[in-house]
Amino acid sequence: MRFNMTTTLFSPAEFEQALRDKGRYYHIHHPYHIMMNDGHATKQQIQGWVANRFYYQVNIPLKDAAIMANCPDPATRRKWVQRILDHDGQHDDHGGIEAWLRLGEAVGLDRETILSQKMVLPSVRFAVDAYVNFARRACWQEAACSSLTELFAPAIHQSRLDTWPTHYPWIDAEGYAYFRGRLSQANRDVEHGLELALEYCNTIDRQQRMLNILQFKLDILWTILDGMSMAYVLERAPYHTVTQEAVWHQKGLLG
Amino acid sequence: MRFNMTTTLFSPAEFEQALRDKGRYYHIHHPYHIMMNDGHATKQQIQGWVANRFYYQVNIPLKDAAIMANCPDPATRRKWVQRILDHDGQHDDHGGIEAWLRLGEAVGLDRETILSQKMVLPSVRFAVDAYVNFARRACWQEAACSSLTELFAPAIHQSRLDTWPTHYPWIDAEGYAYFRGRLSQANRDVEHGLELALEYCNTIDRQQRMLNILQFKLDILWTILDGMSMAYVLERAPYHTVTQEAVWHQKGLLG
Repeated sequence: MRFNMTTTLFSPAEFEQALRDKGRYYHIHHPYHIMMNDGHATKQQIQGWVANRFYYQVNIPLKDAAIMANCPDPATRRKWVQRILDHDGQHDDHGGIEAWLRLGEAVGLDRETILSQKMVLPSVRFAVDAYVNFARRACWQEAACSSLTELFAPAIHQSRLDTWPTHYPWIDAEGYAYFRGRLSQANRDVEHGLELALEYCNTIDRQQRMLNILQFKLDILWTILDGMSMAYVLERAPYHTVTQEAVWHQKGLLG
Repeated sequence: MRFNMTTTLFSPAEFEQALRDKGRYYHIHHPYHIMMNDGHATKQQIQGWVANRFYYQVNIPLKDAAIMANCPDPATRRKWVQRILDHDGQHDDHGGIEAWLRLGEAVGLDRETILSQKMVLPSVRFAVDAYVNFARRACWQEAACSSLTELFAPAIHQSRLDTWPTHYPWIDAEGYAYFRGRLSQANRDVEHGLELALEYCNTIDRQQRMLNILQFKLDILWTILDGMSMAYVLERAPYHTVTQEAVWHQKGLLG
């Protein structure tokens, strides 16, 4: 069952396990990810992924700021703000968004193209925006826990570090700094996120709701890769039936 | 060009024409629509379309209420409220949402399944939500004009009335009341929407922005059919690689 309908209260350990069991729906199982990791992605498909996923990256600090904007607890904010600092950078650290731009350059995109977001597909935009809008409108505990896909993130970053250098020797190794950096950051974030989730979800209703919120977030990540599959694998970029634009899309010439 | 970059101010007539020219991106050109109209859709594909599109239908009054919530002009609201009345119904008129439910029953779905929204695909949900969220956050004139895909709606409703009864004799003809009703309603709404757009868009910037907003709305409609194509044509429902659910989805047994 994708959406949960339990009738008993989980113990904290059982609830954590229920959250972890959601990993079966993580986008590490999406054909687009599998294609990239198996070395079957073209340069264009890698570039499409990096340019589109950039829209997710730049929206993470907006999502985190929205959560903080609804959170009256200074102690929580003191911890949560670290996520914004991680992505935007601080002092000597140039931050995750900059690291992603360097990944973009490493796969042969130019910085301006990425920043312009002109390669971002509508479906990717809608899915990412759903995440930010949820964070704006949900209570902060629910919004915070929607970040719990971080439970599964170290594995996906590690899988890229393990396979991409071999399969794609044309990618500049400097580009992998983002994936490496997130290995430790995600583990730290998970600790805080899980702590909040286990404390807040002390009723059957809250536990069920949180599992469904985690599913919503998994749906977002899956849908992002569906959009890229349409455009860059199935050759059905938006408006492919009515315009040459679809072809331009796939050549990375237009967004 | 999907996104417009003009440098001259259009006259009202030219601007109206520029808006109408956007019709080339209308979802009447989407393969899913063409498949349905050419008589090549299975019962399951028709049912998937009706059940998913229901999510769009129920969100129209929310979108319209959001526009009104940002609009300080009583005269505009007096006209705009008609859209809410059309969908929710008033007095003897049961309204568009009820008419859509009857369409659902006419194609063999039961009312409870449609109302539960369990067949609604995540990608469809994200696209529709993008429309409502835009209406919540944009200035009311911009949000109002995002409805201008109504310019193209009578043609698409007429195309269904012209082809479905022949291709799908198993659909109860009672179900077509929604399409028939929208023929005249959409024409009336277009008149008001165009009036607002032509009055408001009196600078190059506003004209360009409005063309891009109309494109955003076209992207939403196209993306909705992309999601259905993935699930019901390309057999790539969400999580098809990790679960039998994809199969259940396509059998209409699960949402």
